[in-house]
Amino acid sequence: MLITYYSQSGNTEKLAQEVAKGAKSIENVEVKLLSIDQVKESDLLDASAIIVGSPVYNANVAPAVLEFINSWPFEDRPLKNKIGAAFSTGGGISIGEELVMLNILHSMLIQGMIVVGGEETEAGFGASAVTGEGPFDGGEMNELFLKKGFGLGSRVAKLVAKFPAD
Amino acid sequence: MLITYYSQSGNTEKLAQEVAKGAKSIENVEVKLLSIDQVKESDLLDASAIIVGSPVYNANVAPAVLEFINSWPFEDRPLKNKIGAAFSTGGGISIGEELVMLNILHSMLIQGMIVVGGEETEAGFGASAVTGEGPFDGGEMNELFLKKGFGLGSRVAKLVAKFPAD
Amino acid sequence: MLITYYSQSGNTEKLAQEVAKGAKSIENVEVKLLSIDQVKESDLLDASAIIVGSPVYNANVAPAVLEFINSWPFEDRPLKNKIGAAFSTGGGISIGEELVMLNILHSMLIQGMIVVGGEETEAGFGASAVTGEGPFDGGEMNELFLKKGFGLGSRVAKLVAKFPAD
Amino acid sequence: MLITYYSQSGNTEKLAQEVAKGAKSIENVEVKLLSIDQVKESDLLDASAIIVGSPVYNANVAPAVLEFINSWPFEDRPLKNKIGAAFSTGGGISIGEELVMLNILHSMLIQGMIVVGGEETEAGFGASAVTGEGPFDGGEMNELFLKKGFGLGSRVAKLVAKFPAD
Repeated sequence: MLITYYSQSGNTEKLAQEVAKGAKSIENVEVKLLSIDQVKESDLLDASAIIVGSPVYNANVAPAVLEFINSWPFEDRPLKNKIGAAFSTGGGISIGEELVMLNILHSMLIQGMIVVGGEETEAGFGASAVTGEGPFDGGEMNELFLKKGFGLGSRVAKLVAKFPAD
Repeated sequence: MLITYYSQSGNTEKLAQEVAKGAKSIENVEVKLLSIDQVKESDLLDASAIIVGSPVYNANVAPAVLEFINSWPFEDRPLKNKIGAAFSTGGGISIGEELVMLNILHSMLIQGMIVVGGEETEAGFGASAVTGEGPFDGGEMNELFLKKGFGLGSRVAKLVAKFPAD
Repeated sequence: MLITYYSQSGNTEKLAQEVAKGAKSIENVEVKLLSIDQVKESDLLDASAIIVGSPVYNANVAPAVLEFINSWPFEDRPLKNKIGAAFSTGGGISIGEELVMLNILHSMLIQGMIVVGGEETEAGFGASAVTGEGPFDGGEMNELFLKKGFGLGSRVAKLVAKFPAD
Repeated sequence: MLITYYSQSGNTEKLAQEVAKGAKSIENVEVKLLSIDQVKESDLLDASAIIVGSPVYNANVAPAVLEFINSWPFEDRPLKNKIGAAFSTGGGISIGEELVMLNILHSMLIQGMIVVGGEETEAGFGASAVTGEGPFDGGEMNELFLKKGFGLGSRVAKLVAKFPAD
């Protein structure tokens, strides 16, 4: 499975690392963690699951992440029936964390992918982290969000172990 | 698998019937087609996949459909890892057909379900039908939309055949 | 202007009261605070602005709130060009607070209303409050969210003072 | 007021021209029609209303349009209280036309803008056009969609005439 992300400040990378830790906690699943500019088409085609992470920019997915998704192979829909999931980081509560996860899932649905969220109800759309408002302002990323990242990775890896791609 | 819908005008019921036809076209999958008021908790628990259909009311899911979803068993998350999908009918183009399918999928993601769309790219979020505007005004539901319904049912049934519930 | 809400646990009511406080802080604006079952059609027709609040139920607006919105007068679109805004309360971070505010705004856009968010960037879609997860678990509603409610009320009231209805 | 768009195939440009025609049909409103790469910061700051159009790419706004929006001045929120609206063109019915309009509006709400849709109920989120599926496949853009574009332009222009910026 492939976990890929775009990160300017390092927050989305940090969350990506937790997603990868969660995925690696499941046996017999191969896990690749790459920033989006490192991903080759073969990485996408070989993966049974793809998890994409983006920061929130003006309540939308980062343009670089959308350009990346728009570059995925589409002819004959080779990504159809692969598992897809998402994570996001934003600078305030309810400023687009939900929307960014969902907008990534929307693109995956158009590709024909099968879409899932994280382990807990509170990560239903994937893993999100808030940095920069109220109790989450400054300092380290809250343990709460790291746990959602870990749970997203482990849940998707469990599904990959159970339902290997054709 | 369970296909369930709410229909006032008959349009959503008509689309539901096409979804059921599509599902029944796949071998070895048991298909139940029920209006939401006929569904018992055991129907939900027994199903490997649940497909929900709603008309568009003011760009949102019909309240009766949301009440139905809110009544689903939640304790211990018994619907987790079941497959979920959606369909919608609306009285104009781009007045909420996308939103209604997606809002149903959002509820399913919160339940921990695994979410998919229809067969074609043009049914990425599920099957939608427009009645009541331009070329779709009056008369029968356009063949285009019936085909999306059929494709949604057959796609979900194929996934059920491949990945039976635990 | 009318501020109206549905509240089971009291959280949405508490936020509604802050929205009302904010609105009343602006001079020369008449403010009504009513639960949705107290609202008469004349309250809607007389208002220059309508602010609606709902708890998050399975990532969607509470069915009672949608039934309320679906009952609004639609013939000849008497609510067109009124100002609309929204607030929401949810039991976890990123479990639907954004979606509930936006889904209320979507219904208002279908009615032809003019839609705004709160005072701060962090209240772009309206005022949201999280109760029940992490630092927001238990006890009083965090001051952070009360401030967003106050700011939403004062912002909308300022717009009403500036742009009275026809 | 400023109408601005990104267009690869020419469809979004065509719809933009109709939006501009609609805007120009209202007296005493200055209308600029520019592709996004022609827009200078002063065009944004001078405008009382900004209408943005994008094609649908994988159910999301075109990355170039989001980059454009992300470049808008944010410090001290100089676009706050300007009117915002959106239009979109997509290659199939319900493949993201709603989402693209709404995602543009979400960014505008984060900027503090006041957001509106088109003239008719069927253009509640703005003007959308479908090219490339069923009755809309091939040939000219359907008159239905051009009318929504015109109505969006005229509605926003009427609001600008009534509520000039500070």
